[in-house]
Amino acid sequence: MKKTDVLIIGGGPAGITAAISAKRSYPGKSVMVVRQEKQVMIPCGIPYIFGTLANSEQNLIPDASLTKNQIDIMIAKVEKIDAIKKTVLTSEGEIEWDRLVIATGSVPFTPPIPGKDLPGVFDIRKDADYLKTLKSRIEEARNIVIVGGGFIGVEFADEISKNSGKNVSIVELMPNCLSLSYDAEFCCDAENRLREKGIKIYTSTKVLSFNGGGKVESVKISTGEELAADVVILGIGASSNVSLAAAAGLVLGKSRAIAVDRRMETSVPGIFACGDCTEKVSFFGGKPSGLKLASIATQEARIAGANLFETRREGVGAVGVWSTVVGGMALGTAGLTESAAAALGYKAVATYIEGVNRHPGVMPGGVLTKLKLVFDASSGVLLGGQAVGGESVGDMINVVAALLQKNMRADEIVLFQMGTHPALTSSPIVYHLVNAAEIACQKMLK
Amino acid sequence: MKKTDVLIIGGGPAGITAAISAKRSYPGKSVMVVRQEKQVMIPCGIPYIFGTLANSEQNLIPDASLTKNQIDIMIAKVEKIDAIKKTVLTSEGEIEWDRLVIATGSVPFTPPIPGKDLPGVFDIRKDADYLKTLKSRIEEARNIVIVGGGFIGVEFADEISKNSGKNVSIVELMPNCLSLSYDAEFCCDAENRLREKGIKIYTSTKVLSFNGGGKVESVKISTGEELAADVVILGIGASSNVSLAAAAGLVLGKSRAIAVDRRMETSVPGIFACGDCTEKVSFFGGKPSGLKLASIATQEARIAGANLFETRREGVGAVGVWSTVVGGMALGTAGLTESAAAALGYKAVATYIEGVNRHPGVMPGGVLTKLKLVFDASSGVLLGGQAVGGESVGDMINVVAALLQKNMRADEIVLFQMGTHPALTSSPIVYHLVNAAEIACQKMLK
Repeated sequence: MKKTDVLIIGGGPAGITAAISAKRSYPGKSVMVVRQEKQVMIPCGIPYIFGTLANSEQNLIPDASLTKNQIDIMIAKVEKIDAIKKTVLTSEGEIEWDRLVIATGSVPFTPPIPGKDLPGVFDIRKDADYLKTLKSRIEEARNIVIVGGGFIGVEFADEISKNSGKNVSIVELMPNCLSLSYDAEFCCDAENRLREKGIKIYTSTKVLSFNGGGKVESVKISTGEELAADVVILGIGASSNVSLAAAAGLVLGKSRAIAVDRRMETSVPGIFACGDCTEKVSFFGGKPSGLKLASIATQEARIAGANLFETRREGVGAVGVWSTVVGGMALGTAGLTESAAAALGYKAVATYIEGVNRHPGVMPGGVLTKLKLVFDASSGVLLGGQAVGGESVGDMINVVAALLQKNMRADEIVLFQMGTHPALTSSPIVYHLVNAAEIACQKMLK
Repeated sequence: MKKTDVLIIGGGPAGITAAISAKRSYPGKSVMVVRQEKQVMIPCGIPYIFGTLANSEQNLIPDASLTKNQIDIMIAKVEKIDAIKKTVLTSEGEIEWDRLVIATGSVPFTPPIPGKDLPGVFDIRKDADYLKTLKSRIEEARNIVIVGGGFIGVEFADEISKNSGKNVSIVELMPNCLSLSYDAEFCCDAENRLREKGIKIYTSTKVLSFNGGGKVESVKISTGEELAADVVILGIGASSNVSLAAAAGLVLGKSRAIAVDRRMETSVPGIFACGDCTEKVSFFGGKPSGLKLASIATQEARIAGANLFETRREGVGAVGVWSTVVGGMALGTAGLTESAAAALGYKAVATYIEGVNRHPGVMPGGVLTKLKLVFDASSGVLLGGQAVGGESVGDMINVVAALLQKNMRADEIVLFQMGTHPALTSSPIVYHLVNAAEIACQKMLK
């Protein structure tokens, strides 16, 4: 039987980060990652296989991230966790562990829509062979229907439309694409970019059935239309992959994900969990959170890895920070939107600033950049931010994330000394973040 | 006699921002800016007039930033402040004020070098006509010598070398260009970029004299060489412009700038000051700080404007956050360098991360990005950061600035949930900031 001090089940971002964190925190301990996949996909990079990247081989996480940290890798399917004997049974034999980290991720959620099992209907799996098949089907296809206008759906649509001659549609149940993470004005910006690229968008629209003889040929939607479809892509979310954990008797939470404490330990001492398989608690108010993001997964992994033999770190809940690119325009969001804040009962004050991210605005590379900040009116504390613009939005939203996680008030953000430069940012006089906070201060004073 | 509730002397970033902040804070009060210049230059944009921009007209701050906020503008030279009568005397008559904000900025520092008054030796003034003359002289020149390798000198060299056929040299007294704001490894990156563009750099080198008959023809330096020079540009810093304030009896501080309290009020109640004319105190340790940056000036202006009739804000000292672009490579710095921290007596721990700002690294636009963080070993608190890479460095360094200003510890930064995206940032597994903090935690644990 193989033996390791620390065993991590799962080789995705959470598993890799937990392994590195474990090794950095406890250099004397042996750490092993057991995973099913020969090669690991970058999950967020999957849409880019279908346009920007040449193939899925370009979208791999190198094993060097583990091996250079003296972490062992075993390629095997885990069949069973024995929490009493402290072993796992795998397709390649048993492994004994002292501490276990479950990072089994998520599985695509498949809606109970008639025809969902027809050939040509694909969900999105982190599996190189499956994605290779999907890629070749898309290349042959003329009509592609994407179900779900969240970030995965939107990114797939954007990437696929980079290959000319495809007829791409998005069908979204909510009134806007991306509406879980952006207020309507930002969603509309994104939808307009997609439409300019020729993508058809059906919002407030339900998929009724997938139809065809032997393979999918059309999608019937609640507008009454029937959309021609050679390929359907389901991008409507994912469920926590808890089968191993549940079978081992670990407690699941309200959202049917693995229950953990703030130290990322499960109901069984010595067994930790992190990433998409784990129940999250919202940073805002503490309800269970359905967010599944690599930024949260890797943060949880850094907590789990550090706490394996000694309590060193505690989590503060899922904030929800992510960015995307749609039609060459970057969007970023952190924390609560104005509508999410209202739904949680906050009396929110929102401010909105737009301006070119250069000064003077004629400097090369200038892009109109919009920033919205949402504050709690009773305390002045920042609740969230959304930005749209050029590539710097990816880091700008992380400034917002940093402020959020320290519960910064508007009157503190006003006093930030921010670096500005003609070729890189807007001017110090109108710097988006500080100016949005300043306006919020005035609104809240009234 | 003209009358205004709030009078601001100076139309640069500090003056404009103080006026806007005053009007936002006290909408019922009349606010007037009195300034000498018909049109106001963007100070940080001045180097870009000599390469990227077509002319100085493209580098103006529009008056709309004032007029759309109902702020009056008067173009006049202020001759005298009368602190007792609460008036100023200008070339266009007297103005009576209730609150005064002095934002008179800085004047170029001219070193006592023989020959400094020869025609062809220019300093850098925020004056459109002067800059127009300098631009036409540079266009005619073949040999240009820049004295001072701080950010102004480096940016001028970079921009001027965009016009082909010029022979550009930088002479710097310190062992490296940019060494007040960057540790040597980052300075060397910048110098290499400049050298690749054909710019000659003389470090640890003193200028002994400017020579020529009737106009400058050469520069004698401490290496013994005599550099041919048709134009010399002095970029060695600026002194606070305090003549009006000193004549009015306002107390000056240890650094000969206008002394202010944390509320930005001067020694005379009702008279405030902000920006380059004002004495700064370092965020780190509290000594007087020589930093002159628009990010500090505008922050001070937001404090001054808000406090005119009621105390609402207090400053926390000058952090020092700025970015630049050298040979197409962006550099950013915030807070203390490792060497500055050591000079102030901190036991500093520095960590250094490099990686492409995309994931996978083959995604378009990927640039090798390096981040160095400096922590205080005794408390774990962040003291500074430096970054070099692509355009996103401009915002990345502002994430560092946000963390700095909240005195964040390494173990808190590790737990940040940062947005990451294949087309915008490095991967969540190796995200520079979090990873640098993680390594610092391990170093400090030992």
